[in-house]
Amino acid sequence: MTVHRQQFPALANKAYFNYGGQGPMPQAALDAIIGAYQQIQTQGPFGLKTSELVIRESHLTRQEIAAELGVTADTIALTENVTAGCNIALWGLNWQAGDRILLSDCEHPGVIASINEVCRRFGVAVDLFPLQATLNTGDPVATIVAHLTPQTRLVVLSHVLWNTGQVVPLAEMSKAIRQYPDAEQPIRILVDAAQSVGLLPLQLGELGIDFYAFTGHKWWCGPEGVGGLYIHPDAIASLEPTFIGWRGLDYSTPDLPLFNDARRYEVATSAYPLYLGLRAAIATHQAWGSAIDRLDRIVSLATYLWENLQQVPGVKCLNQTAPRSGLVSFQLTDGDCGKLVRDLERQHFYLRTIVDPVCIRACTHYFTTTTEIDELIHCLHKLIN
Amino acid sequence: MTVHRQQFPALANKAYFNYGGQGPMPQAALDAIIGAYQQIQTQGPFGLKTSELVIRESHLTRQEIAAELGVTADTIALTENVTAGCNIALWGLNWQAGDRILLSDCEHPGVIASINEVCRRFGVAVDLFPLQATLNTGDPVATIVAHLTPQTRLVVLSHVLWNTGQVVPLAEMSKAIRQYPDAEQPIRILVDAAQSVGLLPLQLGELGIDFYAFTGHKWWCGPEGVGGLYIHPDAIASLEPTFIGWRGLDYSTPDLPLFNDARRYEVATSAYPLYLGLRAAIATHQAWGSAIDRLDRIVSLATYLWENLQQVPGVKCLNQTAPRSGLVSFQLTDGDCGKLVRDLERQHFYLRTIVDPVCIRACTHYFTTTTEIDELIHCLHKLIN
Repeated sequence: MTVHRQQFPALANKAYFNYGGQGPMPQAALDAIIGAYQQIQTQGPFGLKTSELVIRESHLTRQEIAAELGVTADTIALTENVTAGCNIALWGLNWQAGDRILLSDCEHPGVIASINEVCRRFGVAVDLFPLQATLNTGDPVATIVAHLTPQTRLVVLSHVLWNTGQVVPLAEMSKAIRQYPDAEQPIRILVDAAQSVGLLPLQLGELGIDFYAFTGHKWWCGPEGVGGLYIHPDAIASLEPTFIGWRGLDYSTPDLPLFNDARRYEVATSAYPLYLGLRAAIATHQAWGSAIDRLDRIVSLATYLWENLQQVPGVKCLNQTAPRSGLVSFQLTDGDCGKLVRDLERQHFYLRTIVDPVCIRACTHYFTTTTEIDELIHCLHKLIN
Repeated sequence: MTVHRQQFPALANKAYFNYGGQGPMPQAALDAIIGAYQQIQTQGPFGLKTSELVIRESHLTRQEIAAELGVTADTIALTENVTAGCNIALWGLNWQAGDRILLSDCEHPGVIASINEVCRRFGVAVDLFPLQATLNTGDPVATIVAHLTPQTRLVVLSHVLWNTGQVVPLAEMSKAIRQYPDAEQPIRILVDAAQSVGLLPLQLGELGIDFYAFTGHKWWCGPEGVGGLYIHPDAIASLEPTFIGWRGLDYSTPDLPLFNDARRYEVATSAYPLYLGLRAAIATHQAWGSAIDRLDRIVSLATYLWENLQQVPGVKCLNQTAPRSGLVSFQLTDGDCGKLVRDLERQHFYLRTIVDPVCIRACTHYFTTTTEIDELIHCLHKLIN
């Protein structure tokens, strides 16, 4: 593991627990980015050869992402970030006044703000369902079904909750939603996958999800600025592109129709060199082990962290049982989370605060070490007491 | 000039005339990007210090762009590209069925496709006005005014036409549009500035434009993937954000309202290191000379190219008088533009085809050399005849 970790320059000078915020980029990713910039400058930057390069690299990137998600490349649109993917789904449905969106109470403020604007413009209403409370007890599937209404057109939730780290039983949920007998029209499901892609082994085809928005810069440790949106083949016809640009158009046909596949949701010029960076980052993880092996290690390390956190006086873990993802959140029975996180960063331990519920989040990746965790626990003992 | 040109690695192995497609990145820009990646990895990548860095660098970038455009930083939203900026303007107006958009006949297919979707969704209609025909004769201001209708809510046009290189008299046009007596409501003006930013000296405040969408990767020679949108202070209240994310929210206020300034249109995580690259590119140009001096040189070189093109049998320039921008388009009286551009690129001359009107476009930047132009003319003599 020591040798593997040396590929991540960011890990050299700190104990890092912010993988859910942004993953450390392996040197191979930065090298790939620099190499791509140099190649584009040598070949172009604008010309026939570079144009072929951009098309080829974009395709390879969709393919690589698709392989990781267990789907085909034609279902993947490349975006700048996870929020862009959520917005494509939110703004592309043919909203009618009276439609309702069912939203979990654990979603990210940016997505909520976009939903609020959709509601304002089109006369759509939002229902909230209490997902956060099902972390330790209760049935998330029964909870979501209990909050469906005949007018529900879209359900929005995360796959792994960014605040508590809960892994949502998506397959069971989507099955239950599809079986909801009172639906007046098909219910679409949009998943914020910011915390699941790169963390969970995925076979999206088995989840029954319409839209799955993700980013490369968190658990995949790619460069910030590249993400994507998976659109189920059956959902493409019902999702109009909103922000549109030349990249969504099929230039091989004279009247430039929109592509028939997920490329129709891509807009215009992006930082293409970053695509090679993301692929290099994914390859770095693959070289260590399979997605299943990586999750096993992530959960085992998160469990070790969770067990040790419980031995720190003044710390209360949100999870009452062992975590099932790499996100471990804890509260302080007495004390200021913000101050603690600031003090920790000053001592080279990188964690973050969460506002709802008020807590501190620590993430373990497969290359986290038990030494890092031991040192964090030691530091917490000192700082809290 | 030789020394200045050596700062652009792309210029070392070719004669480059595709500045309107993408500018060659100076080495200082790539170095700034690499340095920013390294700094972010050293400080984070995610943490309190990096968060401050991102806010600071974003602000410095808006400030630098604003200074170049002659406006204040609070009117600039950073975007991924020019098309994203156009889409923010197109989708943010409170469209009513029956509204009309007045569009020039020289706009980019991506923007047209987005307008078509706005029309489809909201029952808006498009009027086209014949701007292309005013390149050599006719009055673009009178033409646009003649095509306004009482229902016109938005005018969409470019500042420098990407196909013919014509410089549009924006100030006169916007003045005439404001004075249109039959307007039922204020007419907004959206400008595609893909070919004007980095080419023309700009004082946007004097143009009377509502929305001005641009990119850093063409005439500014910044990295692909960074652009922006200027929104006139008086137009912000009438332009709702559409795609929304955490970056548009004011986290200093508990209920996370949208920012009051142009930041409200920014969405989420971007490739922040590129911001430093763009600023380094702009600084490279400033070190050579003022925006006025650069345009003087650009036009002088374009004129030299235009004069010499007219001496090539089989070549017909679109401009009947000397060009006023750095874009010089020409047609072949007999021959295939696509084949010629392919043959040219094989011999290391980089130009591009345009579909409407069918032509080839060659661009001169302030650092183009007369030797490059002479060699291009020489090669055209050989290839065409």
